[in-house]
Amino acid sequence: MSAYRQLTGAFSTISYFEHAAVILQWDQEVMMPKGGAGARAKALAEMAALLHRQTCDPQLRDWLVDAESEMLTDDQRANLREMRRVIDNATVLPEDLVRAKAEAESLCQHGWQVQRKENDWSGFAPNLQSVVSLAREEARVRQSVTGSQTPYDALLTLYCHGDSSDLVARVFGELKAALPDLIQQRIDRQSECQKPSCAGFFPVDSQRQLSETVMAFLGFQFDRGRLDVSSHPFSTGNFGDQRITTRYDESNFIEALYGTVHETGHARYEAGLPAEWCTQPLGRARNMSIHESQSLFFEKHIGGSPAFCEFVEKQCGRLFSLAEPVTASTLLDSVKWVEPGYIRVRADELTYPLHIILRFEIESGLINGQLEVQDIPDAWNEKMGVYFGLDTKGNYQDGCMQDIHWTMGAFGYFPSYTLGAVNAAQLRTAMEKRVGPINDIIADGDLRPITEWLAEHIWSVGCRWQSQEIVRSATGKETDAQSLLGHFRKNYLED
Amino acid sequence: MSAYRQLTGAFSTISYFEHAAVILQWDQEVMMPKGGAGARAKALAEMAALLHRQTCDPQLRDWLVDAESEMLTDDQRANLREMRRVIDNATVLPEDLVRAKAEAESLCQHGWQVQRKENDWSGFAPNLQSVVSLAREEARVRQSVTGSQTPYDALLTLYCHGDSSDLVARVFGELKAALPDLIQQRIDRQSECQKPSCAGFFPVDSQRQLSETVMAFLGFQFDRGRLDVSSHPFSTGNFGDQRITTRYDESNFIEALYGTVHETGHARYEAGLPAEWCTQPLGRARNMSIHESQSLFFEKHIGGSPAFCEFVEKQCGRLFSLAEPVTASTLLDSVKWVEPGYIRVRADELTYPLHIILRFEIESGLINGQLEVQDIPDAWNEKMGVYFGLDTKGNYQDGCMQDIHWTMGAFGYFPSYTLGAVNAAQLRTAMEKRVGPINDIIADGDLRPITEWLAEHIWSVGCRWQSQEIVRSATGKETDAQSLLGHFRKNYLED
Repeated sequence: MSAYRQLTGAFSTISYFEHAAVILQWDQEVMMPKGGAGARAKALAEMAALLHRQTCDPQLRDWLVDAESEMLTDDQRANLREMRRVIDNATVLPEDLVRAKAEAESLCQHGWQVQRKENDWSGFAPNLQSVVSLAREEARVRQSVTGSQTPYDALLTLYCHGDSSDLVARVFGELKAALPDLIQQRIDRQSECQKPSCAGFFPVDSQRQLSETVMAFLGFQFDRGRLDVSSHPFSTGNFGDQRITTRYDESNFIEALYGTVHETGHARYEAGLPAEWCTQPLGRARNMSIHESQSLFFEKHIGGSPAFCEFVEKQCGRLFSLAEPVTASTLLDSVKWVEPGYIRVRADELTYPLHIILRFEIESGLINGQLEVQDIPDAWNEKMGVYFGLDTKGNYQDGCMQDIHWTMGAFGYFPSYTLGAVNAAQLRTAMEKRVGPINDIIADGDLRPITEWLAEHIWSVGCRWQSQEIVRSATGKETDAQSLLGHFRKNYLED
Repeated sequence: MSAYRQLTGAFSTISYFEHAAVILQWDQEVMMPKGGAGARAKALAEMAALLHRQTCDPQLRDWLVDAESEMLTDDQRANLREMRRVIDNATVLPEDLVRAKAEAESLCQHGWQVQRKENDWSGFAPNLQSVVSLAREEARVRQSVTGSQTPYDALLTLYCHGDSSDLVARVFGELKAALPDLIQQRIDRQSECQKPSCAGFFPVDSQRQLSETVMAFLGFQFDRGRLDVSSHPFSTGNFGDQRITTRYDESNFIEALYGTVHETGHARYEAGLPAEWCTQPLGRARNMSIHESQSLFFEKHIGGSPAFCEFVEKQCGRLFSLAEPVTASTLLDSVKWVEPGYIRVRADELTYPLHIILRFEIESGLINGQLEVQDIPDAWNEKMGVYFGLDTKGNYQDGCMQDIHWTMGAFGYFPSYTLGAVNAAQLRTAMEKRVGPINDIIADGDLRPITEWLAEHIWSVGCRWQSQEIVRSATGKETDAQSLLGHFRKNYLED
């Protein structure tokens, strides 16, 4: 058997154990009674250890070398490149560093659950210091192997493979230059209106029906996936079986609705990956900035369209008994209401990128050694003042302690949110040149012109190409901020 | 590290992969959308192969030998004995026999799904012939290793370990001698009454509430387990997380109710196994005849008590809107209605053992070579005539083709159902000597005297002792039919 065949066999086996781990994790969040937690944690750890052993098997490296000289198609060669990346990522860190990281991160995350509530920066800082020190070490090791430009780039590539920190800095620079003024203009326009509100009682069961109806409208196939409830919404699954979750608040249907639309975008991307490569690295989603571009395309561009809000108005009329019926225009005004605030996850579309830019600036400084953990609160406060005119001095829980990411050592993850938003707007611009205004398509009630374009340019590509190759091929240029800024101007200043 | 410690480590790892397989299977039956079937089948096969490799690792045998001479407690020595049994069971069959069996059984089972519907014995017989031939070969191989008395014993022990076919034949002989007359007497008594009926419309959601209320009454802990729906009810789970399923028919609440009670018995046994041994062979359920004794104790002895029916009457009054309310006496009369029939799974408590005895006689003959596949229909017809006065000639689908067991090669499984019924009655007799009539305890509303007795004598034992040692220690004697016959006389002839 050729070395390449041996490798695809090994990766296929790995994919089935990953399948198992995915279901164990989904079950843990969605189905498992609390009595099962202890045994489940151990089963997941055992599964992770098995996956690590299999990916680090030295035999794979030998086959990689042999396969390089075999006759391969372009796709097979791309698959080989992705196999090498997976193996490198798994094997590059020495085992004692992996163990030290797991311990420090577990300690930091565990402590943070309480320390955040108690606004206890001085208790939290030493734990974060350990996590940062180890992340710096990890970044140095990874940089030495991958030859990335900076230590931070070596972490960024774990989530945004193919998007350099130079690219991130350039895109974020454009946004940072334009956004404060855009936000101020929007707030000035809003000052004449009352804050819109869709108040009422929205029973869970009716909200679930609304979510399912909207998912079906967005092309989610319920014989190839599920919608469930979990305390933090997420999207996961395996080939032919996409699983998303949401959570319901009976006094506010908008959060669950748009959460579902967002996760449906993730799910459709995964469902649209090339089926014939489903067990191979080539058949995976490209990276988090592409993934987030799909969820945000669904949430902001489809979900933020007047035609979609009309669709929701109709469904709400059918499903809810309200004194004041939900109208498309109130819904649209609600999701577009702009208001600078402390908390990233509650931020509107316009202010959100500045929350990310702030974090990118701080975390890249931390990892590259230009900033220390004790400097974070001042840096945070200064930037919140500049970007939003808000003071966070002494308010750690709504400031630099609000996110879970750093406690888990996930430095380099934040940029994917805003790169995703930028990519989504850029894809829309390119798509509309081809299929016409998406609002008209949504109004027609058949979204296929939109989703077929996405399937062709993004979903079916898998990991055949690098992130920026995908963006360039779909839109004619690399990721830049102009489409997003154009989208903001059109939707927030000219509406 | 001692060899014994090495072994417990290896079995602990195995138990966590079994944990994963349990959840994948449960999910497949209960949650998975049909699009996930292909990938799931492969993931389960990969997991089964891994478990097989790990159990057959030659290193384990070396450790077994070394551990024999180490200083061990009685429990550790029992655990070692069970480890050896697990390893022997996994390693005894040559790989080509395992593969041939899997293929023949898959073919036979697959064909049976259609052939049963079409009453197609001549299509089915050659497939069954292959399965029987391989089962005979398996039995010979297992007999040569385990030294069991007959080839059939070597298969019986896979499901009823510790219960010999001699014991089964003795117990079944007692039942066979007494039951036809008992059944006739019961039918004569019934001839004066109308067949009782609990008719009405029973909405799924109310039935689910009834099931949950009854499960809670039976001591099922919902923070350590779940109730769901599947097309065939079953019980499964992992430590701290027992999962049972049922199915609802809106014109008949009795089936789901008693199905739930039955599965709750299985679940409480599993939940009561010794926690400190949860990853080890010692911590497993003893065998299927003990397992079935617990489910049948719950279903027939608790569920068949007047006090339980009173409890259900109260719940039905609260949950269902019926023209004719469910009364305890109608419910009791319904579950106790005796009527010989063709189908095992629809049989009442009194006729059920004869269905099993018929199958035991045929399958032991088949495996021991006294009967051939082509003889089955005649043997079946003759026995149905003798036991029930029913003619099944030419009616294969309601005769010898009605069960899935033989198509899967599960020869030796059937006896566990009736051994379980016998054990349950015997346990009740012993229990009542200690705690008094269980009906009074159930009427009090606190079942702990019953369940604590079961926990002490059955659940907490795990695999410390052999099957008949457990029965003897709990009841003072080995399994015999007298308690069950006494239970039948008291409940069916003296009520």
